[in-house]
Amino acid sequence: MATTEPRTSSELQTLAKRHLWMHFSRMGAYADGAEIPIIVKGQGCHVWDEHGNKYFDGLSALFCVNIGHGRHDVAQAGADQAKELGFFTTWSYAHPRAIELAARIAHLAPGDLNRVFFTSGGGESVESAIKLVRQFHKLTGKPNKTKLIARQTAYHGTTLGALAATGITNLRQPFEPFMPGGCHVPNTNLYRLPAGQGVETLAESIRERIEFEGPDTVAAVILEPVQNAGGCFTPPHGYFQRVREICDEHDVLLISDEVICSWGRLGEYFGAQRYDYQPDIITTAKGLTSSYAPMGAVIASDRLMEPFLEGTNSFAHGFTWGGHPMCAAVAMANLDVMEEEHILENVRTHEHDFRSMLESLRDIPIVGDVRGAGYFQAIELVKDRETKEHFSKAESESLLRGFLSGELYRRGLICRADDRGDPVIQLSPPLIAGPEEFAEIESVLRPVLEEASRRMQVAC
Amino acid sequence: MATTEPRTSSELQTLAKRHLWMHFSRMGAYADGAEIPIIVKGQGCHVWDEHGNKYFDGLSALFCVNIGHGRHDVAQAGADQAKELGFFTTWSYAHPRAIELAARIAHLAPGDLNRVFFTSGGGESVESAIKLVRQFHKLTGKPNKTKLIARQTAYHGTTLGALAATGITNLRQPFEPFMPGGCHVPNTNLYRLPAGQGVETLAESIRERIEFEGPDTVAAVILEPVQNAGGCFTPPHGYFQRVREICDEHDVLLISDEVICSWGRLGEYFGAQRYDYQPDIITTAKGLTSSYAPMGAVIASDRLMEPFLEGTNSFAHGFTWGGHPMCAAVAMANLDVMEEEHILENVRTHEHDFRSMLESLRDIPIVGDVRGAGYFQAIELVKDRETKEHFSKAESESLLRGFLSGELYRRGLICRADDRGDPVIQLSPPLIAGPEEFAEIESVLRPVLEEASRRMQVAC
Repeated sequence: MATTEPRTSSELQTLAKRHLWMHFSRMGAYADGAEIPIIVKGQGCHVWDEHGNKYFDGLSALFCVNIGHGRHDVAQAGADQAKELGFFTTWSYAHPRAIELAARIAHLAPGDLNRVFFTSGGGESVESAIKLVRQFHKLTGKPNKTKLIARQTAYHGTTLGALAATGITNLRQPFEPFMPGGCHVPNTNLYRLPAGQGVETLAESIRERIEFEGPDTVAAVILEPVQNAGGCFTPPHGYFQRVREICDEHDVLLISDEVICSWGRLGEYFGAQRYDYQPDIITTAKGLTSSYAPMGAVIASDRLMEPFLEGTNSFAHGFTWGGHPMCAAVAMANLDVMEEEHILENVRTHEHDFRSMLESLRDIPIVGDVRGAGYFQAIELVKDRETKEHFSKAESESLLRGFLSGELYRRGLICRADDRGDPVIQLSPPLIAGPEEFAEIESVLRPVLEEASRRMQVAC
Repeated sequence: MATTEPRTSSELQTLAKRHLWMHFSRMGAYADGAEIPIIVKGQGCHVWDEHGNKYFDGLSALFCVNIGHGRHDVAQAGADQAKELGFFTTWSYAHPRAIELAARIAHLAPGDLNRVFFTSGGGESVESAIKLVRQFHKLTGKPNKTKLIARQTAYHGTTLGALAATGITNLRQPFEPFMPGGCHVPNTNLYRLPAGQGVETLAESIRERIEFEGPDTVAAVILEPVQNAGGCFTPPHGYFQRVREICDEHDVLLISDEVICSWGRLGEYFGAQRYDYQPDIITTAKGLTSSYAPMGAVIASDRLMEPFLEGTNSFAHGFTWGGHPMCAAVAMANLDVMEEEHILENVRTHEHDFRSMLESLRDIPIVGDVRGAGYFQAIELVKDRETKEHFSKAESESLLRGFLSGELYRRGLICRADDRGDPVIQLSPPLIAGPEEFAEIESVLRPVLEEASRRMQVAC
């Protein structure tokens, strides 16, 4: 059982099928002898499977390996930290790495977002933000402000508070009843905006919902700068500015859920900076460490912390490993890489090239829309480009799961063929990618989408 | 902003107060110039603060540094893993370290607990277990089985599903309304069992509650082998066996929440092994890595997974970093240490010495009870030993926060002076401790408790 004992591929397959319960996976799919994809190595924008096959990681694993794979130096910073202090808690104590990282994050975050509460991941960050806004309102004399307004099809995590914000029925239904108070409004799917409806109605739908629920019952609005699920919905011009006004008018807090959209994904440290709005809270994780260690954070404004500084008040919340010194050291090293190697500048320099490559695929009949920002882009697949006709549920299943996912992977491209909303291909490469890498993506994506297009034409 | 830039103590204090939102902490307490305790170094059973003061870590940080501090070799195993693969997800993919660790955990876990779903901490493990039992019952035709039975004063985590299980009013109230369906029954506080009440009523209270709620509405019972909050409540003889029978009779699943009680804390890999019962699910974290990296797991029985293996079914749940390869490598190295250095045997050999030392403090007037198992023990403090009279809320505050916490720390002992139930001192040293370390604990604990006793006598 020593850690160094090598395992054969067949042993790994057997053990994986017997013991590893993979996340969001149809584990029955491997019962008939089908292989589980086992990734063994990563370097730059690429990973390799157990058979030595090479893949372009067009999703940065899961929107999270921002500086790319193979940065052993960043991981080593964690092990080096353990030479001094492997772990201590931030429950009533502090340690230098958590302090330094908190200060650094506060320095980078917009406006007076100066207070950093650490977590071990995005879900914990969203849970903490929900708890924070609720206790804040209770401490400031508005105990009924508990509801949360989020958007349809948005993904904010899977824990039983975050699920109230997540707007994807299939992820919610098996787990009812969970935290009450989640309310959903239209997202910014500009491609499918109903005929005659102006984009200004999107922010107004938040105002209407707050007024319908009763402003005294609404704690916060939670929004991603660019919404992931559904396929990279960007905000229309002025959207967040208007949402900010609406929130201020009704004393509703604005949570910018930047688990994906921070740390360079959109070419800025924070998505709120790209779209120039000031949230009360930013939730983050993923790119904070580029996934070299699990760590997230809630970044709150000075105003949010004020009532918690009075008397014996405290935020009655915590996680054993919040601010973990090893993870904080990894985050510091990751941010060093971002600064020293001009990672954000690379995104700003090349995002147009990335987008242009994707736009060039619009001649393929099933490519309906191309959208996103920075290194966070999606292609929506449609049955008819002119009418924007959707694929049926069965067609979508056959297109995405029956062909695209497998074929893209077989030809060496990892990306996301997703059907949480309309079928989309999502691409979110490591932030070190440039024109050469975009050409590599295209070299797989174009022929596979063309083939898919032909198949769907025959099938329809 | 480079990671290597050293900071002075005063700079760290300033930055911590300005930016680091510590967990479960009264941040206002530092407004008047009081210092935040900053821990900078750890080795074996000891840690050091920024001024060079040395402390015995009688709480293993937070019941979690099981093999002790300073194991740079274990942390290094994580960095070495990153030379191959720093991160990849277990959403539809696998990688060797997660597979090997899942197999190893399944091998160590009792009975047919063969299916391992990884998380990044204890709260995520409990959330995942709640979701798992709910979806399991829905898939097997019992969609109304959603409620969770837990015990009063129990701590099962702080996320908004886990909070439904947590039975501590102060941790719940500021965040209402959260997940409905949490029901609480008496815990196994044998010291305060009402006069004339037999211990057998404790398990029967679970049966009664299931019958009151209606068995068709109850998904699971969640219990720690030894309950942490309230102060190390051990189960009476036969308790878990009877709970198992009750669960079977009503098709209610039994979750053994072993975030603290696994990985040697009670002298066995799992608490369920110490008390010889077979849960359907074990939730774990903390000692799995001895906190050298954040990682937890849900360990489920083959029976639990069966409906998820059918057709296109899947557990609609996941976390980006579940099964993180670096963390899995750290867990493997930690388990190597446990095996090779006979950590569990050390606990079994010396737990009696540990307990004897604590029992020897019973001559101090405020020591009411000594209880626990393995290296997980508590001393309950009382106003009157004969009548077991409680301290009032104000006395408890003055005793614990006003004197004990500060004085124990000042004299070099980190432990937990806790008032989530009746006031207790909790001790949970690293599992490498032995008689010499127990003497060191006693050398601080005895004089401080004696002084506290004198103070409370004067005050009362």
